[in-house]
Amino acid sequence: MTTSFDPVAATCPVPLAENERVLLGHGSGGQLMAELLADLTPRLGAGALEDAAIVATGAPEVVMSTDGFVVTPRFFPGGDIGSLAVHGTVNDLAMRGAVPVALSLAYIVEEGLPLDELRRVTASVARAAQACDVRVVTGDTKVVGRGAADGLYVTTTGIGVRLPGAHVAAAGGRPGDAVLLSGPIGLHGVTVLSTREGLGFDSELTSDSRPLHRLTAAMIAAGSCGVHALRDPTRGGLASALNELAAASGVGVELEEPAVPVPAQVAAACELLGLDPLHVANEGCLVAFVDAARAGTVLAAMRALPEGSAATRIGTVVAAHPGRVTMRTLVGSHRVVDMLVGEQLPRIC
Amino acid sequence: MTTSFDPVAATCPVPLAENERVLLGHGSGGQLMAELLADLTPRLGAGALEDAAIVATGAPEVVMSTDGFVVTPRFFPGGDIGSLAVHGTVNDLAMRGAVPVALSLAYIVEEGLPLDELRRVTASVARAAQACDVRVVTGDTKVVGRGAADGLYVTTTGIGVRLPGAHVAAAGGRPGDAVLLSGPIGLHGVTVLSTREGLGFDSELTSDSRPLHRLTAAMIAAGSCGVHALRDPTRGGLASALNELAAASGVGVELEEPAVPVPAQVAAACELLGLDPLHVANEGCLVAFVDAARAGTVLAAMRALPEGSAATRIGTVVAAHPGRVTMRTLVGSHRVVDMLVGEQLPRIC
Repeated sequence: MTTSFDPVAATCPVPLAENERVLLGHGSGGQLMAELLADLTPRLGAGALEDAAIVATGAPEVVMSTDGFVVTPRFFPGGDIGSLAVHGTVNDLAMRGAVPVALSLAYIVEEGLPLDELRRVTASVARAAQACDVRVVTGDTKVVGRGAADGLYVTTTGIGVRLPGAHVAAAGGRPGDAVLLSGPIGLHGVTVLSTREGLGFDSELTSDSRPLHRLTAAMIAAGSCGVHALRDPTRGGLASALNELAAASGVGVELEEPAVPVPAQVAAACELLGLDPLHVANEGCLVAFVDAARAGTVLAAMRALPEGSAATRIGTVVAAHPGRVTMRTLVGSHRVVDMLVGEQLPRIC
Repeated sequence: MTTSFDPVAATCPVPLAENERVLLGHGSGGQLMAELLADLTPRLGAGALEDAAIVATGAPEVVMSTDGFVVTPRFFPGGDIGSLAVHGTVNDLAMRGAVPVALSLAYIVEEGLPLDELRRVTASVARAAQACDVRVVTGDTKVVGRGAADGLYVTTTGIGVRLPGAHVAAAGGRPGDAVLLSGPIGLHGVTVLSTREGLGFDSELTSDSRPLHRLTAAMIAAGSCGVHALRDPTRGGLASALNELAAASGVGVELEEPAVPVPAQVAAACELLGLDPLHVANEGCLVAFVDAARAGTVLAAMRALPEGSAATRIGTVVAAHPGRVTMRTLVGSHRVVDMLVGEQLPRIC
């Protein structure tokens, strides 16, 4: 997702002072705030942002999604709070079969945050948005006093336009559908946790944070109307995503444990930490309910893209036990795969 | 803006337990979060919210705006963080000549916040949105640990559709335009500050927080293409809003001090606190640059609505001193009206 355009290099030839920090006045709506925005908005590669922006969509309906991001630490292997915010919102749109068109960006900043960090996050937002072919069109910055926030929170909202032929919905699953997964699970959650706690796993681990809208577009193009439901298993992990889809569609899901790809480092970290990889957050994979007759074609289309190169079938949608997800384990027994209860990994996204 | 529909009464016949509080697990993406959302979303009067919602706009372009709200205290005379968020975003759309269509709602909640408070804010969002004829279509909730946020932050994003004949833009002002103001200034900022600090003014003061999209629609309908620029003077106050419009339009502004309506209680509080009413935040008035030939008609249309009943002309757009705002004072001298520098009243919205 890196491109030849580097917003920092493009707009900031002077070395940044190390000691500049965000002041309460930067959120005032006055002169200091104007200076902050004049510093930050060119990094978005977008000219001046307006309080309200006009966005050409070319369609009489849009898809809209919003997400707050509170991840800690804000920088981790494979991404940061800025790129994560862009990917998270783009992916929520993609799961409704939409092509992202525009993003808004709202910062809540703690007084004292190094200005340079805000610049880095903003440049990361710009790079991620550019790589997604989506524009940041409007934004907002609030500053709260020391101790009233933990550095920086980012809320992104996206609008997009549905692809022709996209009729995916959480309630779209049907008995007989194949359950497809686009790639290995657990990388984001374990990477962030390991980085935060200094567990040392992070030397080998990288978040899977990435945009999935090209993957969903390829799936929908290949699947005709056979792609029934899509979900990115973020907070709550694969288990929660499948439970939500099963409940919404009024169907059951039967997984095959050997088919669920858990990277060795994720398995090792989960073993040590007492986590279930099925409950660990992902930011760069998706699960789909696809008409069995189209599943092979859809899988082939997924595997043709880097973000779907490890796509695989992990189970089947069934009429039995509606709303419940079960898994045939390695030893052949069946177990119920519940939603995550309570909190496993706070502030993972 | 109260209506006969009361979301709390409609969805919550059982008295709320006083001691329930938000837990970290309520942000997990799992079962506890599902329970929280099942409690909150009916209060929005909107059925289940989706990660991404499909919104019919009926137009090939939309107007988009986002705002974070960090106001403290969260409840104040005339509103709360929920209604303020709805009004703020609706008004940003209105200032571009748009009718609001849909809102997204993102909460960042501190662990330990009384659940009842989150319910009250959510019900307030619902009431305000209903009174604005706008739907909350999608949302997000994140929970951060104790001490990592100050109770509750709300980010709303709105999309709307431009009114026919609306060609308002910050850069639209022209020399000769009348400068119109829809109502008295300073009420929101002074009310919030007084409530926060226990200054006692709040017994007489009420925030002006309210939606302005009906007012802007009436102005645009009455003004033909004569309504050139609109702005709601929120953070930074009337002075900053006028400076921004003057800079964007490349024009000067000359105000008449006696014409600027400052309520007596606002004037008294500002006098005591050393504040300039021109720098105090408003959440329910707007300033407009309007073709002088249409100004009388537009003023009459404004005064026909409750939110514009005190509308008045406060000055003139001039070709001299572009980007600068001056004011003829009560004694006949001229002074420069600068943007707010630094921070006067933190966390006012």
